[in-house]
Amino acid sequence: MLRSPYALASVGAVTTPQPTPHVPIGRIPVLELSPVIEGGRWPAKASVGEVVPIEATVFREGHDAVSATAVLFGPNGRVHSWSPMTDVAPGLDRFRGYLQPDAEGDWTFRVEAWSDPYATWAHDAVIKVEAGQDVDLMLAEGARLFERIVDRKLQRRRTAEDAALLADVAREIADSSRPAGARLAMATTRAVKDALRRIPLREHMTPSARYPLRVHRKTALAASWYEFFPRSEGAVHEPDGTWRSGTFRTAAKRLPAIADMGFDVVYLTPIHPIGTTFRKGRNNTLTPQPGDPGSPYAIGSPDGGHDAIHPELGTETDFKAFVAAARDNGLEVALDIALQCSPDHPWVTEHPEWFTVRADGSIAYAENPPKKYQDIYPLNFDRDPPGIAAEILRIIRLWIDRGVTLFRVDNPHTKPLDFWEWLLAEVHATNPEVIFLSEAFTKPAMMATLARIGFHQSYTYFTWRNTKPEIEAYLEEVSGPQGSVMRPSFWPTTHDILPPYLQHGGVAGFAVRAVLAATGSPTWGIYSGYELVENVPRPGVEEQIDNEKYEFKPRDWSQAEIIGISTLLRRLNEIRRAHPALQQLRNLTVHETTNDQVVVFSRRVRAQHLPAAGHPGATQDDVVLVVLNLDPWGTQESTILLDLEELGLTRPEGVEDQPFFVVEDVLSGERYRWGAHPYVRLDPRVRVAHILRVGLA
Amino acid sequence: MLRSPYALASVGAVTTPQPTPHVPIGRIPVLELSPVIEGGRWPAKASVGEVVPIEATVFREGHDAVSATAVLFGPNGRVHSWSPMTDVAPGLDRFRGYLQPDAEGDWTFRVEAWSDPYATWAHDAVIKVEAGQDVDLMLAEGARLFERIVDRKLQRRRTAEDAALLADVAREIADSSRPAGARLAMATTRAVKDALRRIPLREHMTPSARYPLRVHRKTALAASWYEFFPRSEGAVHEPDGTWRSGTFRTAAKRLPAIADMGFDVVYLTPIHPIGTTFRKGRNNTLTPQPGDPGSPYAIGSPDGGHDAIHPELGTETDFKAFVAAARDNGLEVALDIALQCSPDHPWVTEHPEWFTVRADGSIAYAENPPKKYQDIYPLNFDRDPPGIAAEILRIIRLWIDRGVTLFRVDNPHTKPLDFWEWLLAEVHATNPEVIFLSEAFTKPAMMATLARIGFHQSYTYFTWRNTKPEIEAYLEEVSGPQGSVMRPSFWPTTHDILPPYLQHGGVAGFAVRAVLAATGSPTWGIYSGYELVENVPRPGVEEQIDNEKYEFKPRDWSQAEIIGISTLLRRLNEIRRAHPALQQLRNLTVHETTNDQVVVFSRRVRAQHLPAAGHPGATQDDVVLVVLNLDPWGTQESTILLDLEELGLTRPEGVEDQPFFVVEDVLSGERYRWGAHPYVRLDPRVRVAHILRVGLA
Repeated sequence: MLRSPYALASVGAVTTPQPTPHVPIGRIPVLELSPVIEGGRWPAKASVGEVVPIEATVFREGHDAVSATAVLFGPNGRVHSWSPMTDVAPGLDRFRGYLQPDAEGDWTFRVEAWSDPYATWAHDAVIKVEAGQDVDLMLAEGARLFERIVDRKLQRRRTAEDAALLADVAREIADSSRPAGARLAMATTRAVKDALRRIPLREHMTPSARYPLRVHRKTALAASWYEFFPRSEGAVHEPDGTWRSGTFRTAAKRLPAIADMGFDVVYLTPIHPIGTTFRKGRNNTLTPQPGDPGSPYAIGSPDGGHDAIHPELGTETDFKAFVAAARDNGLEVALDIALQCSPDHPWVTEHPEWFTVRADGSIAYAENPPKKYQDIYPLNFDRDPPGIAAEILRIIRLWIDRGVTLFRVDNPHTKPLDFWEWLLAEVHATNPEVIFLSEAFTKPAMMATLARIGFHQSYTYFTWRNTKPEIEAYLEEVSGPQGSVMRPSFWPTTHDILPPYLQHGGVAGFAVRAVLAATGSPTWGIYSGYELVENVPRPGVEEQIDNEKYEFKPRDWSQAEIIGISTLLRRLNEIRRAHPALQQLRNLTVHETTNDQVVVFSRRVRAQHLPAAGHPGATQDDVVLVVLNLDPWGTQESTILLDLEELGLTRPEGVEDQPFFVVEDVLSGERYRWGAHPYVRLDPRVRVAHILRVGLA
Repeated sequence: MLRSPYALASVGAVTTPQPTPHVPIGRIPVLELSPVIEGGRWPAKASVGEVVPIEATVFREGHDAVSATAVLFGPNGRVHSWSPMTDVAPGLDRFRGYLQPDAEGDWTFRVEAWSDPYATWAHDAVIKVEAGQDVDLMLAEGARLFERIVDRKLQRRRTAEDAALLADVAREIADSSRPAGARLAMATTRAVKDALRRIPLREHMTPSARYPLRVHRKTALAASWYEFFPRSEGAVHEPDGTWRSGTFRTAAKRLPAIADMGFDVVYLTPIHPIGTTFRKGRNNTLTPQPGDPGSPYAIGSPDGGHDAIHPELGTETDFKAFVAAARDNGLEVALDIALQCSPDHPWVTEHPEWFTVRADGSIAYAENPPKKYQDIYPLNFDRDPPGIAAEILRIIRLWIDRGVTLFRVDNPHTKPLDFWEWLLAEVHATNPEVIFLSEAFTKPAMMATLARIGFHQSYTYFTWRNTKPEIEAYLEEVSGPQGSVMRPSFWPTTHDILPPYLQHGGVAGFAVRAVLAATGSPTWGIYSGYELVENVPRPGVEEQIDNEKYEFKPRDWSQAEIIGISTLLRRLNEIRRAHPALQQLRNLTVHETTNDQVVVFSRRVRAQHLPAAGHPGATQDDVVLVVLNLDPWGTQESTILLDLEELGLTRPEGVEDQPFFVVEDVLSGERYRWGAHPYVRLDPRVRVAHILRVGLA
């Protein structure tokens, strides 16, 4: 393993990747495996309990039948489980199976391609016996085949029932005193095929390489986040016009309400001392007024830098008490990491070598010519990689020691990727439970690569996907193969972003985007104030007016219940908890509708993948169908063209569009009897969506 | 290196591929290289003189400029040449350059990603100096930068002119007595940028892995093939009704005419002894008449098998004389390899272990139930892999010794791929000049994988792509990244295939498909009889009536000149020879037209990639534009929306649709003055196409 220049012990080592060495094709080709990141250079991601689709291109010469098995190996290197694969793109030879790791760690998987002599024989025998061709010969060959099928080693792996069934077939197909048709029929029943799908007779088995699958704890994939500025909670506007900052103590009082709405994570914007040089005033002005608290992203003052706590928020003890209170409420704490400095940051004087020095000897501030950001000094990672790296690792470990278990990383795409890869590996080695969320609103290659090199999850383009085609395509994109690299986190707004749809859509618009975020991605989050439908922008920008970055913003939460959004949020999080299907990513199907304002998608977890706990002896799939009206102003009606197979439903014989199954709206409690093409009508003044549990008796 | 079971010395060895090991991302990410086959497991293909597009995703953190270089390493491992890369998909960070190997062998290439301090500075300096911000500082930083640009090592690699220019800039930008605007202007001229594109100042250079590129001789990519049955040439229908077979001697008389039409390769259908058991009669009947010659694909009789020559064709000496005559005419000989046996093949008695034995002790004939092919016994490669492999390698080497330099392999997709990979590697090791054409009309995964594991070229779906959207999409598919794996060979017909378009399109239809094949792919071929517009199918099948596989078919070639197709073929092959652009694959652009029967595409080779010989001091690109009327019955008119950039043309200032360049129809000799949106009219009774040389003064 070559080391990064950030590895302290080997500064300057050069890394040289190598191509995959040539290996012959093997007896049965197995190629183009997924999920595989750059040939396996980085592991694909999964979380504990996640159902991971495994795909490969598998085929063979000639006409004989071929099949494949996906095999999962645990962190100890031993086979953990396996899944039959089926051809999901006939003509393209693309096979898919599903694996489900059940613990954290570094797992691997492979695909085994094999020739299927039973399927080959059954195919030919049925045609030939029907045509009266070679009848005795085909049955004699069937008898030879079943001798191999009931080989002792295979029989031992089978259930008693399967073994007995196949032994019966083996005996009777060899009995030439019985009628030929009966011998063939008993060898080709559904039960025989199922038994052979479970434990097949495999010929010429050819394994792929074993590819890495890194399994994180469940929260890396599925959680509900709540962002807030702790200084606003409990901030007081004094009669003399000055402000008194909220503190960790006052902010902690908000935790029970956040927990009550069903959130799992509270994410705090930076809590460090704030610089005063070039401090920004209200609404991002360059003319701060006395008492303006400054942006918490202008980090560092004589009170300290990234390792310090803003004195107005409290002490280290107060912070730890806040974390403990969060934990008592079932909440984890996520901290914002913004690796940039105000001109007053201690590093500026202690480590001038960490910044860019310009031709005139000054330290370079951030700029995007002709724009200047004089309140921010970016770090120059190329000037002392090991020094900067060690300090940042120290800081991350410090906050982990103080109880932080997740980090929301601000603008990671403005720092070198080799630094992040090193940092994330170092933290993973000692604290695999710690999760990093990448806030990189930038080009696709950068976003994907931050995920490849170790970020656990990522902000997305969700916030700017508004129309039905945009939403459908984006849901499919994040839930497709990309889902094994970049886990999405859907946010309707952030403290920096108030998109036009929410500026104009009123309460219903906020409800639409909450439903879409909470069901469209297993991780979603809101920025506080969402409950209050804060939808007034600063004129000319897609950002809230009176942005909380530059001022205190205490809120009257009692209004939230009146408006009703906090009730919706609570209900959404309850539904997410109740339905494993909503805690998975790569299980989404978009269904066609006849109205371009009505989006329908479903998520399904098959019974065999449901956790036993809470679903004792689960025999039914968990299937959730979301029907959403994107129009926040008007009633929309639509017919839905359901993809029944993806819902796990089979239309009974003779049924066309008549109802044959029941759905229950878990938002309203109403039940409907539906057929393949149900009609829906959504009035946004009443409700913007159905969230339906599918498949009731 | 693990060995195949076909490697005689290690029967039964298992091959286990390995994933790419983890390597850190590096300072500047360079990912998703193309052409790379399964991570480099197999080499990408190129031919001598081929212009190979190299692509990679390259980006960096922050706003600084980034760039990349594609570097080609010769078979000796040393740097051969390099190419600047440019961002061809802004927003997606996709960079492309072009490499051009000039000899056969195993080459490698890599992409070097780097930060571009000059481009970063120039971008910021222009904006800031214009805005009057930091003027002195930006020029002082420019002076620091140019000190590094004129570093001695870099200057030594530059032309004297470039070095002098940059030294001037370095001196004068540092001269603060000069006006600021002038200092900036001289540092950002086109000439300075060009010099720095040639030899840039690169920071944080990060190399990708080196990936394999196997370079074959030119004929592997570009050649014109002519298929015929040697027994038909000179066959005589005797007055008594019997037939006398043509021979190598009589067939050789046809060679000058084939050469005169400009073909490079004569491909012979199998020339081995033909079995009599279950011999097929005329038109694929099961009731042969006495004297029916049988299908040359039913190989083997008491006269011998795949190593033998049909006695009616002549002796080994006659065959060698035929090869020599071909060579005298500038033609190479391709032989058909059909690895299957008639029941009379010597292997059936000498090596019964090479065939499948059924439960009743009989040898299995070919079948696709309920269809039976009792005249063919397939080999069972799993029963004695090393034995079969050694025998086939012996046979291939035998035919190479007899002068065969190309093999057209019949149905390779019905034999194991690991066998082919082994065989092709063995032959390549001793005879890298020998070329194998895969006749696999089957599913995409199989076709692509036969190419991956070593077939030099492949028959394609061309024959079934008829409509404009089909043709455009297919031309782009075969000329895209796929072109570094699977080299296409376009055939309008074969002895097995007469598509509906040609059954109904008359002479014009044959002309259309000839033009499309000869310009749509650098390798194309025809089956003899094409000159005569043989377009009558056997009723109900897409195959010629009186198929030559089952009978002798002497032809009256004098008719070909009268119909005019042989003249067209000659002219097409002349044009292909005269234009390097038509000898390349990955240089195609489709241009939009306003008529759904008019297809337009161009091929371009830039001046710097043209061979010096024949193009002394080439300063002009070779650009060929094909304008084709797909309608064989009616005149079609269209406006063409030319992609000028891809034609290497620049519209002069002030010109909109007015003519500003000249094209010459190399079929007719006519010249036209064209603008960006020319009008064309093609009457198929006069001509079906323009083939235009573009860019004349």
